[in-house]
Amino acid sequence: MLKSDLHGGNIYGVDLEKRNQIIDYSSNINPKGISEFLKKKIIENINIIDKYPDPYYSELRRAIGEYNGVSNENIIVGNGAVEILFQYFKGLTPKKVLIVSPTFAEYERAALSIKCEIYLFELKEKQNFELNEEELINFVIKEKFKKDDLVIICNPNNPTGKFIELEKIEKINVKLKEEKIRLLIDECFIDFIENWKEKTAAKLKDDNIFIMRAFTKFFAIPGLRLGYGIIFEDNIKNEIAKIREPWSVNSFAELAGRFLINDNEYIIESENWIKNEKKWVYEKLLENKNIFPYKTEANFILIKLLTIESKSLKEKILKKNFLIRDASNFKFLNNQYIRIAIKDRENNKKIIEIINEETKWKQY
Amino acid sequence: MLKSDLHGGNIYGVDLEKRNQIIDYSSNINPKGISEFLKKKIIENINIIDKYPDPYYSELRRAIGEYNGVSNENIIVGNGAVEILFQYFKGLTPKKVLIVSPTFAEYERAALSIKCEIYLFELKEKQNFELNEEELINFVIKEKFKKDDLVIICNPNNPTGKFIELEKIEKINVKLKEEKIRLLIDECFIDFIENWKEKTAAKLKDDNIFIMRAFTKFFAIPGLRLGYGIIFEDNIKNEIAKIREPWSVNSFAELAGRFLINDNEYIIESENWIKNEKKWVYEKLLENKNIFPYKTEANFILIKLLTIESKSLKEKILKKNFLIRDASNFKFLNNQYIRIAIKDRENNKKIIEIINEETKWKQY
Repeated sequence: MLKSDLHGGNIYGVDLEKRNQIIDYSSNINPKGISEFLKKKIIENINIIDKYPDPYYSELRRAIGEYNGVSNENIIVGNGAVEILFQYFKGLTPKKVLIVSPTFAEYERAALSIKCEIYLFELKEKQNFELNEEELINFVIKEKFKKDDLVIICNPNNPTGKFIELEKIEKINVKLKEEKIRLLIDECFIDFIENWKEKTAAKLKDDNIFIMRAFTKFFAIPGLRLGYGIIFEDNIKNEIAKIREPWSVNSFAELAGRFLINDNEYIIESENWIKNEKKWVYEKLLENKNIFPYKTEANFILIKLLTIESKSLKEKILKKNFLIRDASNFKFLNNQYIRIAIKDRENNKKIIEIINEETKWKQY
Repeated sequence: MLKSDLHGGNIYGVDLEKRNQIIDYSSNINPKGISEFLKKKIIENINIIDKYPDPYYSELRRAIGEYNGVSNENIIVGNGAVEILFQYFKGLTPKKVLIVSPTFAEYERAALSIKCEIYLFELKEKQNFELNEEELINFVIKEKFKKDDLVIICNPNNPTGKFIELEKIEKINVKLKEEKIRLLIDECFIDFIENWKEKTAAKLKDDNIFIMRAFTKFFAIPGLRLGYGIIFEDNIKNEIAKIREPWSVNSFAELAGRFLINDNEYIIESENWIKNEKKWVYEKLLENKNIFPYKTEANFILIKLLTIESKSLKEKILKKNFLIRDASNFKFLNNQYIRIAIKDRENNKKIIEIINEETKWKQY
């Protein structure tokens, strides 16, 4: 695992003395930062860390269940979504996994951790990185996917920002379920989608589907470590219960999960911000004819560069104290791609100006 | 995993409405509670959770290395000592493990997680639960332990409170190393031993030995989740690096690790407290002829009951709002054993009075 490969951790590739000055556009975190309500709760309850957390996380799971319109019995919690992902692989033990790509790199590491065979399904640029579900189904049939093999779809997808509507997810699942092939939907960014509660795969309550979620991005708490899974299948859930390590969620993360979902002010302000800002950023970027931004439904945007290589642009931008994600190491992308987060208007203006300046065609 | 089996989590077996009134003598946490210095640091740095932790935990590992007189290269960190334990099993993949028992239950779960064959070596009551190293060596030879099989010693041992001096650990290791059998020493309670820095197996810097440590007990932060391993063997370390999940240590735990080891006031006060209090509690308990306390070097004490069963005594004590550990489910113990933590003088007095009252011989 190279430093530069690590999602969310790109800032640690920057020199220590420079790190604090950097505006981090490589990490897709809600720029509102930590909820003031949560800070208050942590300070009020600071003594809870002298006790072990509830190993069954009963109250936390009940709160998350309510937030998602499902029972606490359908919720498993973990140290970030990544732990949930690794647990699901260990609980299911698929022989083959199909990863709809380009996407988040950690699915491959989880598959490798149980020596599962990895197949990649390409989202094509000429199809605007949108998923063709018939081609997907044909792929798993052709490659002889069987019972308890797995298909992974990140929705909305990182780094493309594309979102698949529930109707299409349901169609795909019906087809996969005929062959008893499981479907994992990573919805770690779904909170940034308008009316996500009507669009989450949790609404299907289907035992063939496993959903990955996190508090990390929308609630801006990557350092606190809280992810969860929504599961409707008892056998896999029992397998996960057997292998899970106790107390992987710390007491402050448990507290955060219970309180943040009721922090309506934070939630509504964040929803309004993302709704306006993603439109504004996209339209501004469109004005620059030396790049091609892909329309996004999430809080980040994939950009194709037409005049400069991604690594070189990243370095130039870093000199101006902004860090972007060089997206060249995503499968099926290359050194023409970068990804930037969508942040507050002031910084968005600045980074767009810098990108405009640095992508100008230069005659030598 | 039954609720009652879960170390540290016994309090969650108590009715919710009663939990807050309970003085928890089942969990072996420093009664000084959380360091005021740490609380201040958390509040001052509350915004760190809006960033991912350093995935390599460079500063944390350097601090822990210094605390233990070893290099940062010899330190791996995790979500409590339990994660470190599971990782070591996955990194080493022993075929057989010998667990010196009665002891902490989690070693067996870690062994089962990789389907490793479990052998138990009995610490005999008639030998005062002290380890006979020749018998131990004969055992592994007789059972044909081979290269990369594993022996686990908890030191000081939970629940017996016995501590094995470094010279004896070294002797055992020399013998095991001849057969390339690995030695894991769990030193999660060693900070409670006087002059532990002269007595830790880390001093041996031996590549055959792996040491498990935690901040949990001595620094009273079980809810924060911070454990670490001390390792001198590069191949196993590399295997662990491959399988570990990123960011298993949250930002506050990382902060705690870096600052607590310099909190000399807390450390010295804690050392003085345990030195005095364990002696006082032991001598007080000795006065009761209806029980037999085992002399301890740690912050908990194993007691043999001569007049009442452990479960029944636990229930009677719970009615008075104290929770003790029924030790009957430790291997090689039975319903004659309980374990209590050593806490502050005021509560220690109270629980000893209650024990004295409830263990009186009653003629029916």
